[in-house]
Amino acid sequence: MRLEPLNDRVILKALMAEETTKSGIVLPGQEKEKQQQAEVVAVGPGGMVDGKEVKMQVQVGEKVIYSKYAGTTVELDDEEYTIVRQDDILAIIK
Amino acid sequence: MRLEPLNDRVILKALMAEETTKSGIVLPGQEKEKQQQAEVVAVGPGGMVDGKEVKMQVQVGEKVIYSKYAGTTVELDDEEYTIVRQDDILAIIK
Amino acid sequence: MRLEPLNDRVILKALMAEETTKSGIVLPGQEKEKQQQAEVVAVGPGGMVDGKEVKMQVQVGEKVIYSKYAGTTVELDDEEYTIVRQDDILAIIK
Amino acid sequence: MRLEPLNDRVILKALMAEETTKSGIVLPGQEKEKQQQAEVVAVGPGGMVDGKEVKMQVQVGEKVIYSKYAGTTVELDDEEYTIVRQDDILAIIK
Amino acid sequence: MRLEPLNDRVILKALMAEETTKSGIVLPGQEKEKQQQAEVVAVGPGGMVDGKEVKMQVQVGEKVIYSKYAGTTVELDDEEYTIVRQDDILAIIK
Amino acid sequence: MRLEPLNDRVILKALMAEETTKSGIVLPGQEKEKQQQAEVVAVGPGGMVDGKEVKMQVQVGEKVIYSKYAGTTVELDDEEYTIVRQDDILAIIK
Amino acid sequence: MRLEPLNDRVILKALMAEETTKSGIVLPGQEKEKQQQAEVVAVGPGGMVDGKEVKMQVQVGEKVIYSKYAGTTVELDDEEYTIVRQDDILAIIK
Repeated sequence: MRLEPLNDRVILKALMAEETTKSGIVLPGQEKEKQQQAEVVAVGPGGMVDGKEVKMQVQVGEKVIYSKYAGTTVELDDEEYTIVRQDDILAIIK
Repeated sequence: MRLEPLNDRVILKALMAEETTKSGIVLPGQEKEKQQQAEVVAVGPGGMVDGKEVKMQVQVGEKVIYSKYAGTTVELDDEEYTIVRQDDILAIIK
Repeated sequence: MRLEPLNDRVILKALMAEETTKSGIVLPGQEKEKQQQAEVVAVGPGGMVDGKEVKMQVQVGEKVIYSKYAGTTVELDDEEYTIVRQDDILAIIK
Repeated sequence: MRLEPLNDRVILKALMAEETTKSGIVLPGQEKEKQQQAEVVAVGPGGMVDGKEVKMQVQVGEKVIYSKYAGTTVELDDEEYTIVRQDDILAIIK
Repeated sequence: MRLEPLNDRVILKALMAEETTKSGIVLPGQEKEKQQQAEVVAVGPGGMVDGKEVKMQVQVGEKVIYSKYAGTTVELDDEEYTIVRQDDILAIIK
Repeated sequence: MRLEPLNDRVILKALMAEETTKSGIVLPGQEKEKQQQAEVVAVGPGGMVDGKEVKMQVQVGEKVIYSKYAGTTVELDDEEYTIVRQDDILAIIK
Repeated sequence: MRLEPLNDRVILKALMAEETTKSGIVLPGQEKEKQQQAEVVAVGPGGMVDGKEVKMQVQVGEKVIYSKYAGTTVELDDEEYTIVRQDDILAIIK
């Protein structure tokens, strides 16, 4: 089974902590921030969304930072995903 | 009797738990998430909705994930349905 | 006396419980849901409503399901009616 | 003195209870509902209101039902009036 | 010093009670309602306001009724004024 | 250092009490109202702001009245400024 | 690793207190205001954002003042950044 997002939606999968921090020093609040980083696993087709043309700008495999509390968490085949609108993605981590 | 949705509305019927989880391991919170999965039983005609053109993208029989708390639950002939706007559908489960 | 709705408004009259349930089994919460089913008794002319073109899609005599808490309840000649916008009607019961 | 409404505003004057109920039976809640019925005493010119074209559809002398809590109550020459937007008028009583 | 309103703003000055009531009978609540009556002392140029064309419809010297709680009260040279948007003016008293 | 506002923003500096009141009589509430008067110290370029064309109408050096609670107070080089959108400016004091 | 903002987003890095105050006198509330000053470290491409054309007006290296509470704080490689929409930037400090 796989998820195929509608409209301007993007499906994200949380990144493991090891992948995103080079330094071993844990700052207060670091744990919470980490949850905003994720990998793109599926991208909707974009197009007319709520009467406005949306062009998709992220690609599967990219690592992104998204808004706190944005999106809906779903579980499929024992994996947890977050489905957000592309506009909830703040930046791509290069 | 059957329900014929207006505009961009979609009528959903909850999926049984057995149909959506391959693994037998129950993770905490899994029960709640499951309620967001449903089968499409009727699709409105789309068209101009609130001054914006909406093209329907889901089809009867497809399994979908929809927003928590979205829609209205109705009962007809002892069956329970949820009526949502298409934009409350996040992704199609393929 | 009769009510002639303005714009995209529709006048509804609650359906009696007997008319809408085939089964005699009363499920919990059934009473509340029943109140969302109604018969259309008058339909506004549609047209430009709040700057958007609205085409009326329901007809007098049709049975419909409408949003919980939507509309305004009025009483005329000892009959109770609910006046809703067409967009508060979710589906037609056929 | 008389009130000349601006834009899409309509000036209403409450109807006496005697004029609107044929039956002498007082149902609970009837008193409150009655306050939503009123006679149109002045109609604004319509036109462009908040960037949208509004065509006036009610006429002086018509009896109407309007939204609960809508409008502003003013007093002029010891008479009380309610000034509403036309869109707060739900239906004309014919 | 004088105030020159921007955009669709109108500067109002409260009317004295004597000018607005013919009858000497004081009804309950009358005091509060009186505060909604005012004289226009300055009118903004109108034009494009928040992306919409606004044509000014009130003139200096006219008596108007405006929305409760609308506008901002300012004091200049020991006189108190209320600055409202034209759309907060409900009707002109003729 | 100086502040250069973006879009339709205007930078204001509070006026001293002495400059704005001719009379020596202090009315109740006068102190609070005085804080709404300010001098324009910088004006943004205007142009397309949130999809709407905004033409700047105030000039550096003008005294203005602005909405209570509008804007953001910032401090630069031990001077305090308030940055507002032009639409929060109600009137120019001439 | 570096952050590449989407749409009209701008990535900011807080300025050290030493860089922004010439005077050594600490006024009450000064500490809090200082947090609104930041340096631009990355600028999104702009373009069509929520159906409106946005032209980017800030550049990497510029010092800016932004709205209190605006944006999302993220941490990358033990550095803390704030990601805001360009419209949350009030002024450039020159």
